[in-house]
Amino acid sequence: LAGGAMANDDLQGMMSDSKNWVIQSGDYANTRYSQLDQINKDNVKDLQVSWTFSTGVLRGHEGGPLIVGDVMYVHTPYPNTVFALDLNNDGKILWKYTPKQDSNVIPIMCCDTVNRGVAYADGKIFLYQADTTLVALDAKTGEPVWSVKNGTTADGSTGESGTSAPMVVKDKVIVGISGGEFGVRGHLTAYSIKDGSLAWRAYSMGSDDEMLIDPEKTTHLGKPVGPSSSTKTWEGDQWKIGGGTTWGWYSYDPKLNLIFYGTGNPSTWNPSQRPGDNRWSMTIMARDADTGVAKWLYQMTPHDEWDYDGVNEMILADGVEIDGKPRDILFHPDRNGFAYTLDRATGELLVAKKYDPAVNWATEVVMDKNSPDYGRPIVVDKYSTHKNGEDVNTTGVCPAALGTKDQQPAAYSPKTKLFYVPTNHVCMDYEPYRVSYTAGQPYIGATLSMYPAPNSHGGMGNFIAWDAAKGEIVWSKPEQFSVWSGALATAGDVVFYGTLEGYLKAVDLQGNELYKFKTPSGIIGNVTTYEHGGKQYVAVLSGVGGWAGIGLAAGLTKGTEGLGAVGGYAGLSDYTTLGGQLTVFALPGK
Amino acid sequence: LAGGAMANDDLQGMMSDSKNWVIQSGDYANTRYSQLDQINKDNVKDLQVSWTFSTGVLRGHEGGPLIVGDVMYVHTPYPNTVFALDLNNDGKILWKYTPKQDSNVIPIMCCDTVNRGVAYADGKIFLYQADTTLVALDAKTGEPVWSVKNGTTADGSTGESGTSAPMVVKDKVIVGISGGEFGVRGHLTAYSIKDGSLAWRAYSMGSDDEMLIDPEKTTHLGKPVGPSSSTKTWEGDQWKIGGGTTWGWYSYDPKLNLIFYGTGNPSTWNPSQRPGDNRWSMTIMARDADTGVAKWLYQMTPHDEWDYDGVNEMILADGVEIDGKPRDILFHPDRNGFAYTLDRATGELLVAKKYDPAVNWATEVVMDKNSPDYGRPIVVDKYSTHKNGEDVNTTGVCPAALGTKDQQPAAYSPKTKLFYVPTNHVCMDYEPYRVSYTAGQPYIGATLSMYPAPNSHGGMGNFIAWDAAKGEIVWSKPEQFSVWSGALATAGDVVFYGTLEGYLKAVDLQGNELYKFKTPSGIIGNVTTYEHGGKQYVAVLSGVGGWAGIGLAAGLTKGTEGLGAVGGYAGLSDYTTLGGQLTVFALPGK
Ligand SMILES: O=C(O)c1cc(C(=O)O)c2c(n1)C(=O)C(=O)c1cc(C(=O)O)[nH]c1-2
Ligand SMILES: O=C(O)c1cc(C(=O)O)c2c(n1)C(=O)C(=O)c1cc(C(=O)O)[nH]c1-2
Repeated sequence: LAGGAMANDDLQGMMSDSKNWVIQSGDYANTRYSQLDQINKDNVKDLQVSWTFSTGVLRGHEGGPLIVGDVMYVHTPYPNTVFALDLNNDGKILWKYTPKQDSNVIPIMCCDTVNRGVAYADGKIFLYQADTTLVALDAKTGEPVWSVKNGTTADGSTGESGTSAPMVVKDKVIVGISGGEFGVRGHLTAYSIKDGSLAWRAYSMGSDDEMLIDPEKTTHLGKPVGPSSSTKTWEGDQWKIGGGTTWGWYSYDPKLNLIFYGTGNPSTWNPSQRPGDNRWSMTIMARDADTGVAKWLYQMTPHDEWDYDGVNEMILADGVEIDGKPRDILFHPDRNGFAYTLDRATGELLVAKKYDPAVNWATEVVMDKNSPDYGRPIVVDKYSTHKNGEDVNTTGVCPAALGTKDQQPAAYSPKTKLFYVPTNHVCMDYEPYRVSYTAGQPYIGATLSMYPAPNSHGGMGNFIAWDAAKGEIVWSKPEQFSVWSGALATAGDVVFYGTLEGYLKAVDLQGNELYKFKTPSGIIGNVTTYEHGGKQYVAVLSGVGGWAGIGLAAGLTKGTEGLGAVGGYAGLSDYTTLGGQLTVFALPGK
Repeated sequence: LAGGAMANDDLQGMMSDSKNWVIQSGDYANTRYSQLDQINKDNVKDLQVSWTFSTGVLRGHEGGPLIVGDVMYVHTPYPNTVFALDLNNDGKILWKYTPKQDSNVIPIMCCDTVNRGVAYADGKIFLYQADTTLVALDAKTGEPVWSVKNGTTADGSTGESGTSAPMVVKDKVIVGISGGEFGVRGHLTAYSIKDGSLAWRAYSMGSDDEMLIDPEKTTHLGKPVGPSSSTKTWEGDQWKIGGGTTWGWYSYDPKLNLIFYGTGNPSTWNPSQRPGDNRWSMTIMARDADTGVAKWLYQMTPHDEWDYDGVNEMILADGVEIDGKPRDILFHPDRNGFAYTLDRATGELLVAKKYDPAVNWATEVVMDKNSPDYGRPIVVDKYSTHKNGEDVNTTGVCPAALGTKDQQPAAYSPKTKLFYVPTNHVCMDYEPYRVSYTAGQPYIGATLSMYPAPNSHGGMGNFIAWDAAKGEIVWSKPEQFSVWSGALATAGDVVFYGTLEGYLKAVDLQGNELYKFKTPSGIIGNVTTYEHGGKQYVAVLSGVGGWAGIGLAAGLTKGTEGLGAVGGYAGLSDYTTLGGQLTVFALPGK
């Protein structure tokens, strides 16, 4: 435990030094905020490309590099190569690690062969491979120290895959699992960073035991969940192939010792096949970091009918004033188009408001604590794909299945107390159909098509500033395509993000564009910043793909292919093509 | 013919406007010199990356973009995608063309899946595919206008492939053929730019008819070659599988109406299997552009024993003073380590000197016109792989098979009257062995290993300035790896080249480094420049590969693999990995 506590202290110390970027999300709070201010709103227009690096891999590049002292760690999509680059020597390759994986995992990755990045702690780099192997590499040499299989198979035969970034908390490394479109039952799992031994596993659905739920103590909106809170909301054994995967972002509050994350869609996408609330899919979870036991839960989209996975990041912000009272909040801009503000110690729901005016599947979230529907969205009948039934095309649902926001993480500036959120502005038609389960085969049960939100600016995205206390859009900057890249906010009063066409953009705190640069390929990576040799750098991975870019990434052209995304984003091919490059920016001069 | 003449006039006019870059080599003379001087020796240090473009293809990217007015045409290695990019709209993709090719051609490409670029004329883009299909695309739409097969098969079964850049002369487009390592008999072929019909074909070896040789009029070092000059230098029918492929660069002198190019190595690499001079392999050819008939020939390496293909570029320079007399010369830095200066009207040999002091396989080229050995190299016995014989390892031969220079083209500045030559500084061991011919199978017959030139600076390359009148190195800048990228000289008194580690470098006329930038991947493309909207740009393709980078490109690791190149260049993997990107540079400001 001593060693474990050390690892954590060390990591937290390194996180608090903005020269580094030691965790994918910038910090445990997932703010993606940097105190660096050498690059600021006045000089960002002079930004230059400092150096570049090709990863040697094509398709969607999510996540970003880690910067630990003088070394930068760069990862790739499948085959999940990891590079250690020497920042003192023009990015010379110190080591390179390419796992051997069964390529059968490729076709079972729902939304491109993405990987959201590696983790660092205790002198090790943690890589979570597409085939669900979690491997710890010696950060100095790239030699594997240990490895463990998180899924039950490594060849895709059970539909399990890995795309998420692991997070290290104290002496454990936390990983999720993907495969909601293959009937995989999700779980969050903690392994010892020392030897990869299993510490705990918490399923998203199932018995209280398997879910690490204490029926008396685990609460939902302030009340104990009671026994069998999950299984009793499913018909029969459907929960065993019920989804609720955990492929998004994780955050951690050291004071509360709680880990926060969300669970994905219930399987299948045909809601008629799974009556009930389908708990605890689509749920924000707060779990004890040592034991995994759930402190509180909140299900945002009971009985999902639109594939609104609840896995988006949870950003932890302190002292945000709500109704005159400073609160330590959890902010969660959900796929379903509502942005939630909760008290992160208790799970109390403070704010739930639409962060895109186009959202139409629900009118509101019930905020009356005395209502039996407290915390539930009020679904609009005409957009209920369950009510409309199987083999009926429900049209004009906003947002589309990929939500008002998907994996692209937002940033938070403690200076402005605002959230800077990359969003989608996309609607869909959704036609559910009956599907039967076969292990390792797609278990979708719906045909989708997507298109820009009608009667709007014509584009498929906005980059917005959000007030999580008031539940209001402060400003909104239209974009032609979804902003599938993660944002970065800095003490220089600049906010950065990338676009699917391939631009790195910098805006001021009013959303005015100050700088843009066309990188080699569409950006779905997350912008990071670091300081080296007294100079501030901004870095981002290019490489179009992800769900939005699946048409380009996988070479699909039929509109409804790629789970419905191909048609809507077809225009992307006029702007960019496949790539895999790191671009590093800095101001001129030494 | 009127239309043809027009096309030519048009093309020549566009070439003479340095705002464009309408032919891979910059101009017919292959000078790679630009009159643009906005970027100059004083401000080049301020160069910035202006924009970038990923080609979506990995492996070796040779050649470079063409710039025709407001449109940039970018090609890729196999699968030979072509993009038209809108320079008025941030490089938006106007059209994209991806040929369908049989992937069986990949394994028969000796030296990576490279392509040296497209040609433009008459509103058409000419693409010469890996499978030897020559296709004319409408430059506005990318629609194929016509296509013709230059080789006899398109599936690799005869070992024929295409890598070279076509050249348009008047109403014809000229292409070569690759496959010297597969016993392909080389030829240069001219097709009508209008409809792709065959105009003439000149073989590199064979009967006078097939070679378009006039025994009375075609000369070798001033004397008519006489009848059967080729076949009588071969034993039996070996010439039919005799190599002499034509995969290098072509130049053209409109005043003389002559096309100049060189022929490759005789097949096999085992010299004992082909006694004789093996004419006209390893030969500079001057041919009439309309008829293809040879005006003069000069064989540099009779009976090659080291794979010193004679295909390197022929640069045409006017008024170079030699022995007090201004001469219109052809300059040719050959693979064999000698740089040749000839009178290009007559083929008179003026200068032949080593352009790397490491060269040791021959002591000199006989310049005494009265000697029976006039024009021949004096071979050093101990480096004669034929004398040493089959299954004997001849060690320490300099240069290595990839020569003192390979496909990477040099530049010429009419201001300095000097040639700026990217070179290799590599030696080899060479062990020939008996091999039998099977169509479509490698026909090599030698095992090689390569290494940096011993007792030198330790690196594998130099970038040099060469005085072709005196036959002297003016300055030499050591490089860690071979400079496999083509040079660019400009009126701004700057010379550019790329390195295998990925740097774009700018040097002054004394060889001092003024600027370097690390592009995403190793550079084997050729640097180009153009002007758009009043601003000068420098552009280069990154994407490590080619023969020098074949280890990375094809994933080979055994030292003698990749025809012996893998071992020598193994260190490259510490600096770069696969890529495929265009990087465009400019000075700051609008
Ligand atoms: O249910 C799942 O297991 C699962 C996994 C993933 C993934 O791992 O990338 C995505 C999704 N679902 C998904 O619903 C989704 O919108 C999505 C987008 C992306 C992406 O990287 O662009 N991945 C995923
Ligand atoms: O004999 C041939 O047909 C042939 C073809 C090629 C080619 O087409 O690329 C090369 C060579 N030979 C060759 O000898 C050689 O050194 C070479 C280097 C390269 C390259 O692109 O880096 N190609 C070739």
